[in-house]
Amino acid sequence: METDKIDGLTRLFVIIGDPIHGVRTPTLFNEMFGRKNINAVFVAHHLAAGDLKTAWAGLKTIKNLDGVVITMPHKTPMCGLVDSLGINGRVAGAINAARRKSDGSWEGDMFDGIGCVDGLKRQGHEVAGRSAFLMGIGGAGSAVASALAHAGVKRLVVQDIDPLRLDRAIGRIRAAYPELSVASGTIDDGPFDLAINATPVGMGDSGALPFDPSPLPASTLVVDVIIKPEITPLLVLAQKTGHPTQPGKHMHRGQAIAVAQFFGFDLES
Amino acid sequence: METDKIDGLTRLFVIIGDPIHGVRTPTLFNEMFGRKNINAVFVAHHLAAGDLKTAWAGLKTIKNLDGVVITMPHKTPMCGLVDSLGINGRVAGAINAARRKSDGSWEGDMFDGIGCVDGLKRQGHEVAGRSAFLMGIGGAGSAVASALAHAGVKRLVVQDIDPLRLDRAIGRIRAAYPELSVASGTIDDGPFDLAINATPVGMGDSGALPFDPSPLPASTLVVDVIIKPEITPLLVLAQKTGHPTQPGKHMHRGQAIAVAQFFGFDLES
Repeated sequence: METDKIDGLTRLFVIIGDPIHGVRTPTLFNEMFGRKNINAVFVAHHLAAGDLKTAWAGLKTIKNLDGVVITMPHKTPMCGLVDSLGINGRVAGAINAARRKSDGSWEGDMFDGIGCVDGLKRQGHEVAGRSAFLMGIGGAGSAVASALAHAGVKRLVVQDIDPLRLDRAIGRIRAAYPELSVASGTIDDGPFDLAINATPVGMGDSGALPFDPSPLPASTLVVDVIIKPEITPLLVLAQKTGHPTQPGKHMHRGQAIAVAQFFGFDLES
Repeated sequence: METDKIDGLTRLFVIIGDPIHGVRTPTLFNEMFGRKNINAVFVAHHLAAGDLKTAWAGLKTIKNLDGVVITMPHKTPMCGLVDSLGINGRVAGAINAARRKSDGSWEGDMFDGIGCVDGLKRQGHEVAGRSAFLMGIGGAGSAVASALAHAGVKRLVVQDIDPLRLDRAIGRIRAAYPELSVASGTIDDGPFDLAINATPVGMGDSGALPFDPSPLPASTLVVDVIIKPEITPLLVLAQKTGHPTQPGKHMHRGQAIAVAQFFGFDLES
């Protein structure tokens, strides 16, 4: 719809993050609201990590705010600020969406992992029974790990710069999926069917690589969760060395569909 | 612009109030942003009185929020929450707009009064040297009183249900405009050239009258600050008894132009 149709009855949805300039979520939702003639608008809030608690206390008081999408660096801390958590939020220890329930309380859950696995399936890639390397176990990484476990991955090797959060995440996954082989390790502990970057390394114009895909078998699918640039330095190099790749936009689209469903909307109709 | 153009770089403006359903400010600003190709959007936040302090602490942390328009019941309490005040905000003891200054602090000021007097002037009505009755000395009423004083009204009679805030407001006006005859009183203390309702009485479908305009001289201009309904029960009755009238939309338009200027925009080009 045109922004000049926004009025006092317009329902609000926001995405919070820092940085916030690359987000596509407002466009996906606003296109859908326009298509369905829903009086709602989705905007982006640029929020620093240190301001989250104060910001969230304030956001909760906005009576016409119905949902919040959470991006870096707020996914993990938001876990402790909502009133209740869905199963994926509890296992991942992080959330990427929160909705106002009919009793006024806020419920959070994590849909990034569902988005990643759905994205892989939509591209024709199998996850069940496979082995995967995951770089990064922050908000997005934890979500991808729990979704991979839920989808039946056989072996999972995770690397992270923070040994404490890595241990904790592995502990949560082992507790929920005792049959899965999950351990800390590096890209050298392969071979892997999947190699996934879930860190911000390679975002923007940095040109940085989260890991070197060159030594991996040619059949290893290289996945990035970063959406801007669409083809990260990791994916450029993986393509050069003959690997199939999946950019972040597929995960992002799958994640947005799942979040929309959580908010009560069908993004695809 | 279309809402699907909203992205992470979009600047935000909000109006806060309770009730919020009747606001027109988002439309006025969003039309202007669209016309000028400015990547900004104006939305409404429904905020209860008791939540203002928490809400404002949160709103201030949103880095891409540049301005806030304040409507009932927040105009008076917001006066104590901003970092600095303009002259009309100080005299009125209430503000209807706040902007983020370049140093990151928030400055508030009151433009409702300017809007009312500009609205009268635009309709060809003189204010200087006239006598006025004003019903209501809350946020909007205080602003109208200080703007009437500033525009050179000769005599001002004010009525309010709260004797303490009435005394305080009269004290502030007397201190700033010692040559003006200002006193508490009723519509029976006329004759008046202007009779203005600055209370919420008559808003919505209530059908209520803030005062009875019938006994006033036919030349008395009857003004309402309420914008929904456009023609309030007060104005219906005033028209029936032959008085010239001015609905709230003129004041609102003048107020919006002044607020836009405060935010750095020209609403009329």
